[in-house]
Amino acid sequence: MKNLISMGLIYKDHQLWILDQRKLPHQESWNRIENPQQMIEAIQTLQVRGAPLIGVAAAITLADFAFSGASYNEILESQKALSLARPTAVNLMLAMKRMFQDLPKQNYSSLLVERAEEIFDEDVKLCNAMAEQGSTLIRDGENILTHCNTGGLATVGIGTALGVIRNAFESGKKIHVYVDETRPLLQGSRLTCWELEKLKIPYTLICDNMAAHLMKNKKVDKIFVGADRIAANGDFANKVGTYSLAINAHFHQIPFYVVAPSTTVDLNCLSGAQIPIEERNSQEVRGATGEFGNVNWSPINAPIFNPAFDVTPVELITALVIDHKILTRQELMPHIFHKFILRQDL
Amino acid sequence: MKNLISMGLIYKDHQLWILDQRKLPHQESWNRIENPQQMIEAIQTLQVRGAPLIGVAAAITLADFAFSGASYNEILESQKALSLARPTAVNLMLAMKRMFQDLPKQNYSSLLVERAEEIFDEDVKLCNAMAEQGSTLIRDGENILTHCNTGGLATVGIGTALGVIRNAFESGKKIHVYVDETRPLLQGSRLTCWELEKLKIPYTLICDNMAAHLMKNKKVDKIFVGADRIAANGDFANKVGTYSLAINAHFHQIPFYVVAPSTTVDLNCLSGAQIPIEERNSQEVRGATGEFGNVNWSPINAPIFNPAFDVTPVELITALVIDHKILTRQELMPHIFHKFILRQDL
Repeated sequence: MKNLISMGLIYKDHQLWILDQRKLPHQESWNRIENPQQMIEAIQTLQVRGAPLIGVAAAITLADFAFSGASYNEILESQKALSLARPTAVNLMLAMKRMFQDLPKQNYSSLLVERAEEIFDEDVKLCNAMAEQGSTLIRDGENILTHCNTGGLATVGIGTALGVIRNAFESGKKIHVYVDETRPLLQGSRLTCWELEKLKIPYTLICDNMAAHLMKNKKVDKIFVGADRIAANGDFANKVGTYSLAINAHFHQIPFYVVAPSTTVDLNCLSGAQIPIEERNSQEVRGATGEFGNVNWSPINAPIFNPAFDVTPVELITALVIDHKILTRQELMPHIFHKFILRQDL
Repeated sequence: MKNLISMGLIYKDHQLWILDQRKLPHQESWNRIENPQQMIEAIQTLQVRGAPLIGVAAAITLADFAFSGASYNEILESQKALSLARPTAVNLMLAMKRMFQDLPKQNYSSLLVERAEEIFDEDVKLCNAMAEQGSTLIRDGENILTHCNTGGLATVGIGTALGVIRNAFESGKKIHVYVDETRPLLQGSRLTCWELEKLKIPYTLICDNMAAHLMKNKKVDKIFVGADRIAANGDFANKVGTYSLAINAHFHQIPFYVVAPSTTVDLNCLSGAQIPIEERNSQEVRGATGEFGNVNWSPINAPIFNPAFDVTPVELITALVIDHKILTRQELMPHIFHKFILRQDL
């Protein structure tokens, strides 16, 4: 496989390395991934996260596994296990399906390598396309609010929502970003702030529950978020807290944009109600854990509900920035969305 | 002064003790307060918090100071300094004003003691009155969502919003409580969970940004919150995150109730726009600090916005439970609210 380099993933000289995102922003530590089981663990423990990135990372892992001599059956089993590593983001499942589509039982290795490279390159290109399209929505001087992390750490390109923001900034627009901390796993505080500092984009970090106060005080001009899965009717799942932001944006009449590649669309999900929502470990909500320490501020056995994602209905979306297109809420109406969203059409 | 006992404050044998709320839920540690300066520090560092409680605590501190022989001028200075210890909750300012109203320059000590006892007893009675009124709004089997801490730790009685919930539970209604963790200071995770465990009321802890997801899935029947200051038009300030909850409740048509004693009303504030919002230390948002440890998960100099409160407009309130009355949104219209709210009328 050729060398593949991104902010959070490096395949070089036949070795796959991932930036351990649990340790950011204070420590930049790279872990070598030597087999599919290690990648599954890295995905489940959020060393690697971000809907597009986990799809690409799993594809490279599979190709590398084949390249190192794994049998067809070993690869098939790994492909199934990788598909199930996280249930909400669909990019992972689609990438795994694509890797195996009509795969011959012999000489499959070079084909898997080719497909993994293709999936990687495509993500880079789609990020650039979304960034260029999306940044036309941002005006000089605006305050943009974002949630979770949707940048170079969530993809192998410049990102989805954060890629749009970066493109606007680098094209000379003076913008400022409000970053939701994104409890419980703090992807905003840890990862988005880290990326924005690297890019020298002015930002302010807030707690998730402060966003509405900012909106009321006219401090937020636009909201950009990513997506983990988009249903056929335009409803989408994203990091928990997105739905509340969308309602608050609607109440304050603030434009609310979703930025995602077409690899995030699942036409088999007819509506948001069919998207499975991953529930994670209670300990994540009882406190916070990371390189910074392991603290628990709640009663030790406090009963917890910890959905990692929520679903926002299409009615609350101002527009979806997808690949080379911007689709407004009206265009996202089910029958039209189908037409636009089919891969060959994008 | 007579002995005065509550969940978070004890005045006994002429000694004032406060439960250090920073150390809950894992440690129940009582600190002696020997002078007004120590109480100011305790209020500012949130050893003592909750709008009604800080008003009562400051009054007892002032009376105790007088009882221990402080001069009129010393007391006057302390009264001014205590009034300014926190800017948003009005109970503190009103209690301080009430302590000094027409105070003679001689033999003031016994009068201050009498007034502090009166303020304490009144808070207990108002909590009971609100709890009895408010619990009529809760039906058997309901799921109630609450924010921050509004129980025995926030008052010297059984609480405001949490007092209502407690009364409903103790009157035999099978209820379940969803507790917002309440970033950044985690009063929900640390204090409300601690109180609910003591009271054996079933609860589930969530992150603030998960509340909308619960509402969408019809898991929340009613929302009860407290208030730190209610303006003359019915707008109210409360812990940051309340406003977002109110908008989410409105969107999902879920009843949203505010529970507060009349000591929380500030008729000098004509609307919510006039309520000053305290901004607190950036470090609170960059991580979390308490008896559980001191962790920082953000870039070390991450720019922060940290408003401790937000303002919810009267239009989003289903009803206000105040002292012995339940006032609906319609009754909270400015000119009517004035009539109801005058102390002699309650």
